[in-house]
Amino acid sequence: MSSLIYLKQKILKITSTIFILLVAIFRCSAKEHPCLVMTAKGMSEVRSGDKAPLFEAAKEQAVKRIELALKEPIDVPTPKDMGGGHTHEQHKRNYVNMHVAASLYQIDGNKKYADYVKTLLFEYEKIYKDLPKHPSTRSYARGKIFWQCLNDANWLFYTAQTYDAIYDYLSKSERKQLEKNLFIPFADYLSLENPRFFNRIHNHSTWGNAAVGMMGLAMGNDDLVQRALYGFQMSEKDANAKDNDGGYIFTDGKLKAGFLAQVDNAFSPDGYYTEGPYYHRYAMTPFMVFATALKNNKPELKIFEHNNGVLLKAVNALIYQTTMSGEFYPINDAQKGMSLSAGSVVSIIDITYGLSGDHSLLSIAELQNKVTLDQNGYLTALGIHQGKAKPFNKKSVELSDGGDGDQGAIGILRTKTQESELSVLFKYPSQGLGHGHFDKLSFMMYNGADEVLQDYGSARWVNVDQKSGGVYLPENKSWAKQTIAHNTIIVDRKSHFNGKYKNAVDAHSDPYYFNVTDPTFQIASASDTNAYNDVDLHRTLFLVNDPSFGAPMLIDLFSANSSNEHSYELPFQYMDHYMASEPRIESLPAKQLGEKHGYQHIYKEGEAKIIADNYSFNWFKDKNFYSITGSSSSGDNLILARLGASDPDFNLRRDGLMIHQKSGQKNVTFLSVIESHGHYSPISELPTNPFSQINGVKVLFESDAYCIFLVEHKSGKTMQICFSKQDTKPTSNHSVNAEGVTYNWSGTFNKIKIQNGHKTN
Amino acid sequence: MSSLIYLKQKILKITSTIFILLVAIFRCSAKEHPCLVMTAKGMSEVRSGDKAPLFEAAKEQAVKRIELALKEPIDVPTPKDMGGGHTHEQHKRNYVNMHVAASLYQIDGNKKYADYVKTLLFEYEKIYKDLPKHPSTRSYARGKIFWQCLNDANWLFYTAQTYDAIYDYLSKSERKQLEKNLFIPFADYLSLENPRFFNRIHNHSTWGNAAVGMMGLAMGNDDLVQRALYGFQMSEKDANAKDNDGGYIFTDGKLKAGFLAQVDNAFSPDGYYTEGPYYHRYAMTPFMVFATALKNNKPELKIFEHNNGVLLKAVNALIYQTTMSGEFYPINDAQKGMSLSAGSVVSIIDITYGLSGDHSLLSIAELQNKVTLDQNGYLTALGIHQGKAKPFNKKSVELSDGGDGDQGAIGILRTKTQESELSVLFKYPSQGLGHGHFDKLSFMMYNGADEVLQDYGSARWVNVDQKSGGVYLPENKSWAKQTIAHNTIIVDRKSHFNGKYKNAVDAHSDPYYFNVTDPTFQIASASDTNAYNDVDLHRTLFLVNDPSFGAPMLIDLFSANSSNEHSYELPFQYMDHYMASEPRIESLPAKQLGEKHGYQHIYKEGEAKIIADNYSFNWFKDKNFYSITGSSSSGDNLILARLGASDPDFNLRRDGLMIHQKSGQKNVTFLSVIESHGHYSPISELPTNPFSQINGVKVLFESDAYCIFLVEHKSGKTMQICFSKQDTKPTSNHSVNAEGVTYNWSGTFNKIKIQNGHKTN
Repeated sequence: MSSLIYLKQKILKITSTIFILLVAIFRCSAKEHPCLVMTAKGMSEVRSGDKAPLFEAAKEQAVKRIELALKEPIDVPTPKDMGGGHTHEQHKRNYVNMHVAASLYQIDGNKKYADYVKTLLFEYEKIYKDLPKHPSTRSYARGKIFWQCLNDANWLFYTAQTYDAIYDYLSKSERKQLEKNLFIPFADYLSLENPRFFNRIHNHSTWGNAAVGMMGLAMGNDDLVQRALYGFQMSEKDANAKDNDGGYIFTDGKLKAGFLAQVDNAFSPDGYYTEGPYYHRYAMTPFMVFATALKNNKPELKIFEHNNGVLLKAVNALIYQTTMSGEFYPINDAQKGMSLSAGSVVSIIDITYGLSGDHSLLSIAELQNKVTLDQNGYLTALGIHQGKAKPFNKKSVELSDGGDGDQGAIGILRTKTQESELSVLFKYPSQGLGHGHFDKLSFMMYNGADEVLQDYGSARWVNVDQKSGGVYLPENKSWAKQTIAHNTIIVDRKSHFNGKYKNAVDAHSDPYYFNVTDPTFQIASASDTNAYNDVDLHRTLFLVNDPSFGAPMLIDLFSANSSNEHSYELPFQYMDHYMASEPRIESLPAKQLGEKHGYQHIYKEGEAKIIADNYSFNWFKDKNFYSITGSSSSGDNLILARLGASDPDFNLRRDGLMIHQKSGQKNVTFLSVIESHGHYSPISELPTNPFSQINGVKVLFESDAYCIFLVEHKSGKTMQICFSKQDTKPTSNHSVNAEGVTYNWSGTFNKIKIQNGHKTN
Repeated sequence: MSSLIYLKQKILKITSTIFILLVAIFRCSAKEHPCLVMTAKGMSEVRSGDKAPLFEAAKEQAVKRIELALKEPIDVPTPKDMGGGHTHEQHKRNYVNMHVAASLYQIDGNKKYADYVKTLLFEYEKIYKDLPKHPSTRSYARGKIFWQCLNDANWLFYTAQTYDAIYDYLSKSERKQLEKNLFIPFADYLSLENPRFFNRIHNHSTWGNAAVGMMGLAMGNDDLVQRALYGFQMSEKDANAKDNDGGYIFTDGKLKAGFLAQVDNAFSPDGYYTEGPYYHRYAMTPFMVFATALKNNKPELKIFEHNNGVLLKAVNALIYQTTMSGEFYPINDAQKGMSLSAGSVVSIIDITYGLSGDHSLLSIAELQNKVTLDQNGYLTALGIHQGKAKPFNKKSVELSDGGDGDQGAIGILRTKTQESELSVLFKYPSQGLGHGHFDKLSFMMYNGADEVLQDYGSARWVNVDQKSGGVYLPENKSWAKQTIAHNTIIVDRKSHFNGKYKNAVDAHSDPYYFNVTDPTFQIASASDTNAYNDVDLHRTLFLVNDPSFGAPMLIDLFSANSSNEHSYELPFQYMDHYMASEPRIESLPAKQLGEKHGYQHIYKEGEAKIIADNYSFNWFKDKNFYSITGSSSSGDNLILARLGASDPDFNLRRDGLMIHQKSGQKNVTFLSVIESHGHYSPISELPTNPFSQINGVKVLFESDAYCIFLVEHKSGKTMQICFSKQDTKPTSNHSVNAEGVTYNWSGTFNKIKIQNGHKTN
């Protein structure tokens, strides 16, 4: 080799080393893009990695969408309409399209997608500086593009990610122009100019914080990032205003604001979101997306470890709160049918899988059958394609409510049956803010995906024009929130807290005992002393799945104690179709049952007077036979009722309910066994086990401290349960004498099975 | 080779040749077994052929069943109980088990299965000769093993096949003993001793004929076969008796009996079974099974060509009468949910595939996901395994009713939509015997598998103890059969034929016009002059699927003409959930709507007085939005009603219906457009097309001879249809002058689309 050639090579080597160093320095100072949820490294793996079918499908769908959009004229109309109207829907379409197009640009580098985004962004840049507030005055915090800041925040939330994805495609001056005329004013409007929207603990603010923060990260503007993380100072006046839902902006007028405060306050330590999973699913997106962006840009915050790693706990909590088919239990204001397949949950699952690599999340993603158009979606799709999916174990769980976990809880009990799963959500948390219902100690029960005893959900058709455009209907308040719409005790036909939010907002029920260590005998127990002034309620649910005793069943032990006489009613929302009962229910002409507290919405369609010490009620729904066997006293009534009265706009479903009524008593105990025992196929026309397996139930002894009761199976076997109602210490010894027999046990409960007078297995 | 060895081989060869010849001769004289549905040749192919997964699954299930049965003690109890009781169910289990075990013996030659059958048969042999009639006296023809001959015939029907399958396993003397003491007396009892059961045209007799005939074929007893094919002489007295359903044994006292007469009389020339598909599915089994046995043993009968090959037409007709998901349209007395997946249809499809090799039947078998345990099931499974399945084209079709095809018809219209299929069953046949409903010119409409406008079906839970053991409930007569339970005109709140079977049994509606050659514009038209003494009804359905006009829709043109004034009501059984209407329906406290003809079962829950010339009605069901847009006159009413009144045992579903009412008029026309136009996902929470696409409808001209009307789309396009009501000749020219405009056309109808006053495409 000649020395000249040697020299040339040497120079080349040095030059390239310098170049690499320069690039590295440049990268350190002027951040790499994308850097929010997508990262440069992550997206390079997407481009070079193996194909993953579910991701390819997402890409194909996105290409189809954007190719269609490219054929349409650019449309950035002057804001005018409410949700459903043209300008609202078009601006929504625009920010989604920009985000999808920018993602496609990241995936395949096709510049036409980036160019489409650029064109749209500059259209917004052109109009934004002169935009007044949106003409509609319906919101406490009006937006500029949309009628409320929340939607404007959605725009900025997605557009921050969009901008980040095409950042390198734009020239420096283009970026400067967009940031100066559009992004910074936009972020300032959402924050500084709307403190009531931005600066409080509320899911609206979470969107605002995340939007402003992510735009800050994308732009490298730390001022915006700090504002997003910690909020900003504001006046007293703003702090005492109310929001659209009637809630106060600040709980105690204290300045608690910004994203980190949201993470501290939105969830209980178990990750429970106080409004319930329907709202949790929606609120979770800005948490997870902004947190991921913070992890990628401010790892020192350790955001996913913040507040004991509550964000990831909240993801699990969300999944736990679903039926076997992945639908959310419809507690509080919730439209039924919302499920893990919702777009917001797809992004949550993919992000979480990207973080944790937990293969059990892949089975949730399989159920969703969709992935996001970014590196997390790609990894999820790849994991599924590589057969790594494992079942997600939705275990029985108690989730505390309240920022400190001391505002009650919900208990979820599950047990596998031969072909399905029985599950119960038992509700003893706080009110759940403005979306809460008056349903202390209520539960709902499912057989797989089918409702056995329903919670009505909300009286609302979201986004449906025929039903007042999708807002909460009057019957949401007059029926869906009322106690009679649930499966819990109503005293004197008045809802819990007399149906008043202000009485309920600071109260919560009390978890008493939760034990699911024995899968054949799971227990959840809770009490409430707030729903009524002079009545204490205590309910215990036993989910029994003991093959040596019989088919699975739920035992519901519900006592109410008062120093005054009351009428107590326990409704069971069986929906349809009543088959048989003992005593027989006499059919009556439909007659409105009451005037208020929800009773004005139901017709009595039948009644039975009970004289025996047990009643049974058998119904048929979704091809299955169900039964309730309950303890009763002479003078009790069974009322068969149906929704539909006082319903001027036909907003209510015509569902059926059965009410077990006890009148003129101080202390009552409702002991009920609920079974899913049989099936009917209209094809074979053969019923299997159409009747209850239970002969009867009996309360042997009840005091403030104890309850001892029996459940007798048709086989002759009897389950005898001793339960301590005021002491859960495992070491305590209990002794009760009832009708000449002494019962001794240790710990909260004792369960034995008896056959022919002898203890058995 | 030594000559000795050569000689030995020669002798061996000759000996074996003689043996083969002897076997062949023996086979010719003493028939080969099995020979009914299974044949020796067919089953040898099953044993030697490739494995077919669906058949293997059937075998596995059968082995499981019989291995379980082998562990139980043999139980042939003294007959005593009704359906549901022990002796009834045990004898049923016995004949099914014997048939399954004998099939397994044929498939794998395991003698323990044959031995199990033999043991059971000899148990029956032991008791049969001393058995009295069954103690229950509920049947017009009591059996010995069961309460009615029909069930005894089922026993013999399956046991003939069982016997045939293990024939060679039994010794000659064993066979003689069984035939003498069990089979011949059993067959004689069902025929000679029960002429009212055996010797008439009725589905019960078909089972009797097939059972006796197949046992005759299995035994080689031609006397039994002849009796099965042609019936036998009987007395006048027997001939005039009534059966359990109240029908006469003979129509005119004439002796028309035996299997060939059943084939001649059970179906219309198009293969329609007059009671409808729910009963057709059950009745079809003995036809197809015995016919197959006859084909194999008496090919000279050409049974599948008999009566123009009606049996195979009946198979197709049965398939046509199903929704997209394979459920039978529930006309007449029919329990909803019964489908092509029923066991009886599995055997029919497999037999038909075995006969025809038609690959489109394989797609039906795929839907069934089951095959029979014989050579036909094997061939079907093999065909599916080899990927030969082709879609079965369920076309739009008119099926005539009556033995000669002159007793009215049903019309089925179908059209593919973007994601599904709209289908309509239009009913203008005869009454359908004792299981018929009073619903002349009614229709039911489906969106894929979902009901858009329902037929209530029967008020019955087959085999369900809680509901009177599964018999037809009183509400079947008082509601389900009444006209108001259907989608057709009721005059003066009296059911068709005044709700009397005797008035209806000999009447039928009249097909007027059926044209489905244009898939964008299918027409079915029929009239009825019998339902009411002084009212003539004429209804025409147009199923329109013309993309240049809009989304698919059903146009319903229904006129009623009388020389007297009447109140006319047209109900639409929309079920749930009313969303909106124009005019708005005022909600009212539930009030029972009438006292009889089904009106005693419904509550009025709302009403609207119409003053405009159009009304619209929008509802939501199964995640879809539907609308009716109807022509109206000032003074018309819309009544919103709901089932549930006068229902002492809560037997009725709480379904909703809407009634369009026109009072005090002689001649009325109901012109209604019914659309399935939109969808709503509770996951995306986005409605698509929640509102009707139709602006309005208008009748421009109506006389006895013509109707000219318009349907106006929201796009501004109008469809103008001229229809000739009394002349279907394609060559006829028609001219109508209406409001100064002359309309000329040739043939039954003329359809044009108009935009901005000009004809368009």
